[in-house]
Amino acid sequence: MILLYQGEAPDANFYYHSGVDIDHAFLLMDGKRKTLLVHEMNAAIARATFPGRIVVYKDAMATLAKLLRRKTVFYDSDAISVHLFSRLKSICRFKDHSQELARMRVVKSQVEVSKIAKAARCAKEILESLELKKGMTELDVKKQLLLATLENGLEISFEPIVATDLDSSFPHSHAGKKKLGSILLVDFGVKYDHYCSDLTRCFILDGDRKKKEQYERLKDICWFIADSLPQMSKGSEVSALADDLMAKAGFPKMIHSIGHGVGLEVHEHPGLGPKSIDPIGNTTMAIEPAFYLSRYGMRYEETVFNDGKKARVL
Amino acid sequence: MILLYQGEAPDANFYYHSGVDIDHAFLLMDGKRKTLLVHEMNAAIARATFPGRIVVYKDAMATLAKLLRRKTVFYDSDAISVHLFSRLKSICRFKDHSQELARMRVVKSQVEVSKIAKAARCAKEILESLELKKGMTELDVKKQLLLATLENGLEISFEPIVATDLDSSFPHSHAGKKKLGSILLVDFGVKYDHYCSDLTRCFILDGDRKKKEQYERLKDICWFIADSLPQMSKGSEVSALADDLMAKAGFPKMIHSIGHGVGLEVHEHPGLGPKSIDPIGNTTMAIEPAFYLSRYGMRYEETVFNDGKKARVL
Repeated sequence: MILLYQGEAPDANFYYHSGVDIDHAFLLMDGKRKTLLVHEMNAAIARATFPGRIVVYKDAMATLAKLLRRKTVFYDSDAISVHLFSRLKSICRFKDHSQELARMRVVKSQVEVSKIAKAARCAKEILESLELKKGMTELDVKKQLLLATLENGLEISFEPIVATDLDSSFPHSHAGKKKLGSILLVDFGVKYDHYCSDLTRCFILDGDRKKKEQYERLKDICWFIADSLPQMSKGSEVSALADDLMAKAGFPKMIHSIGHGVGLEVHEHPGLGPKSIDPIGNTTMAIEPAFYLSRYGMRYEETVFNDGKKARVL
Repeated sequence: MILLYQGEAPDANFYYHSGVDIDHAFLLMDGKRKTLLVHEMNAAIARATFPGRIVVYKDAMATLAKLLRRKTVFYDSDAISVHLFSRLKSICRFKDHSQELARMRVVKSQVEVSKIAKAARCAKEILESLELKKGMTELDVKKQLLLATLENGLEISFEPIVATDLDSSFPHSHAGKKKLGSILLVDFGVKYDHYCSDLTRCFILDGDRKKKEQYERLKDICWFIADSLPQMSKGSEVSALADDLMAKAGFPKMIHSIGHGVGLEVHEHPGLGPKSIDPIGNTTMAIEPAFYLSRYGMRYEETVFNDGKKARVL
């Protein structure tokens, strides 16, 4: 028996297995048999959207106690807080299943890939439609991204990063009132039917040749890594290849990993860090070579699908 | 020593005590002495924004082990996952401090109240500016809310609920492609400088007298409860008063609590459920009487500040 939980915020494993997005709900999976436990206030919406068995609770712990007593239950230790677990663990025996649950989502179906591809295409179109003018601030550019996302009936997959000059040297800068200077970094993605994309583009606003040339080298590294994915089998190999390419191109060693899986979550398995043994076949990943100097930084990021034989920039 | 953590998503206690919004960061508080542990990739942004001591980690657990060894550390069991805790607890002795941390944020300073008041005022203006036309869908109305929020340079404090007809009988409905019918429920709030507001309005689109009259009774209940807050001392009393007023007005017993605290989080202490012993003085709360019938529902919600002598609808 597997137990999943969605509290106030959406939970990717909960949605993946239930197909619904209902707060304060538990999903019990016993083989293919699925039971959804919902609070009284969500009973009507559960009945209208969830095809399996529905149990309405007033007191979640009392209801779970009846359903789980004397069972061994697999749970997601990444999604359950210590506080909630302190109440759950008096009911029955629990075993951590977080790694297995995350890995179940790594291999993407054709339908999933097409949703992520659509999300990437939409994000790319929005990035290409940006109108950058002198005197604009980072927040002005962020507003353009958000407006275009709305106009297209989509949602952002994370808070967009819009960073000019010094701010671009911080990988996770927040957009502020700074006016656009010599360079602009935009890290942006949207969701299409729950599935995320993740892209980064830089704009060399001062037309500086050296910066333009650095950016071209960064793009080449991203595409080269993408093309090489089918020849590699696990995350650490991608990391090692990136280290090698960055050093050969004369860039400093990266301070974050070369990428990550992308799906229902914008950061998910496979990991692409130096120690990752996660398999990278039949999955979607963001590949994001980057460097951060004292006065500015650059990153180029694509969302890529690797079917094991060929990789495709989405 | 208190330990707070912000992972991928913002954490209210982390922001409240650190004043910064940095991912994958730990805050250590030893009396007034604050130390921020950040990943290498966030070192530059931490230095630019955090006034206290900064420690940059490559391996968070190894760095924490050095700083915390042999100490007793108070932590937030609501914000730490079982997985993260399983790694932390080998370092030192931990004690749950979640209730204390949540309660520290209950009493609001004048500055906090003014931010929440501004957030409420902005949300009210946006709700009043809605243009509802025949043939529009729930999603069209949601788009108006989001566009207006953006135009005002604000963020939403939660995903707005826009629900017509049957959908309004689900307290937490998601906006969809349904065309506006005889009634529309809109639950909406924005953030002003991190602080939330939370309001609900209903629009009786068919002009039905019975519905209009029900809505007026609901408003009266909300305002009466707001006015009565200074005469009560804890959450359960507000709940009991609401039950009494709803029954007297001929409405069914509520299926969610009459309200909740509002601050950095849109749902926070004090709780206003039937068992809550949380004090309700000098704090901001959402008061939201509601009923859900088989064909439609109604809710009226205001964000209110109770200084203990007088309550003020913000």
